[in-house]
Amino acid sequence: MSEGKTPDAGRRSERSHQAILKAVVELVGEMGYARLTIEAIAARAGVGKQTIYRWWPNKGSLVLDAFAALMGDTAPLPDTGDVVADMKLVLRATAAELCSPRFEVPSRALTAESQLDPALAKQFVDTLLRPSLEVTKERLRVAQRAGQVAAGVDLDVAVELLVGPLFHRWLLRTAPLTPEYADTVAEYALAALRPPGTSGSAG
Amino acid sequence: MSEGKTPDAGRRSERSHQAILKAVVELVGEMGYARLTIEAIAARAGVGKQTIYRWWPNKGSLVLDAFAALMGDTAPLPDTGDVVADMKLVLRATAAELCSPRFEVPSRALTAESQLDPALAKQFVDTLLRPSLEVTKERLRVAQRAGQVAAGVDLDVAVELLVGPLFHRWLLRTAPLTPEYADTVAEYALAALRPPGTSGSAG
Repeated sequence: MSEGKTPDAGRRSERSHQAILKAVVELVGEMGYARLTIEAIAARAGVGKQTIYRWWPNKGSLVLDAFAALMGDTAPLPDTGDVVADMKLVLRATAAELCSPRFEVPSRALTAESQLDPALAKQFVDTLLRPSLEVTKERLRVAQRAGQVAAGVDLDVAVELLVGPLFHRWLLRTAPLTPEYADTVAEYALAALRPPGTSGSAG
Repeated sequence: MSEGKTPDAGRRSERSHQAILKAVVELVGEMGYARLTIEAIAARAGVGKQTIYRWWPNKGSLVLDAFAALMGDTAPLPDTGDVVADMKLVLRATAAELCSPRFEVPSRALTAESQLDPALAKQFVDTLLRPSLEVTKERLRVAQRAGQVAAGVDLDVAVELLVGPLFHRWLLRTAPLTPEYADTVAEYALAALRPPGTSGSAG
């Protein structure tokens, strides 16, 4: 946006930019990643193909940007001092997002394509997934310093213990992702990570 | 096989049957589920299309049978009396299977297709996945009776705590599925499920 444009041109650019990102997410949900074309995106967004190529070198980079916009910023997680309560909030929000139509359909399409396209999968993980896992890991690191998580815990595994069950249930559609389910997973996972001799356990 | 065939015809049938199942798994890995055709399967297996249609009403039922054969029988899990040791064995075996080429490529293709085809996904889960989750749940139920898992634990969530992290790591390719990783997940998950007041914890 800092290419010496007039304010009006800047606003038009911004509107086109947003329209393109929105079109990408819609179309990935409707037709999947593989069949998505720059032509279809341009038509849906009401812009010329050259406008798209000016900002993105290829379809992959555009789709990643669109999903980054969909997922929003990775802000630090809540820290009330109670890691179990905080992780319940986080997992409830994750469950709600996974099940919201605007997120679910395009996310399943991208997950499907990632199975067939390891390069896309790697970009998706590095750009979108890993930052989100990192903020969870950072919250657990704070809990570890506060003595709520055992000193020797492998925090990468700890994160997977929290998000893995939700992801398994969502992706394989084995059962509903309810808020109560999110709470139970948070309770069990944090019980696993508790320092020896501290109270509480699942069940 | 009990249609009054001669022994020779029975053996030929069995060979054709196995050749078809093998061809299906290979071709799902090579071209994905969506582009798979009965013609391609027949050609690869060296049988006529009618032979296939005689045994399977459609592509979906054939692919499910082929994956059932690939995955083998769902035998009860080991029970040495030590649920942590037993689950380490099970998760190590699961990790090794997920990463073996004969299993990984077709499984990713089927997982991808399941995201786009909820009916196929449901059949896959009901026929193949749920029986495998059930034997894990049954092993945990035995541990619950033996006092190694807390009485109030939701065993469905417990199973997801064990398999969810491996599945998340495998599907998203975030890190290698090593035997040590499988051990750590088993230790953490079982620590979460332990009855109050019993010893041990992660880390």
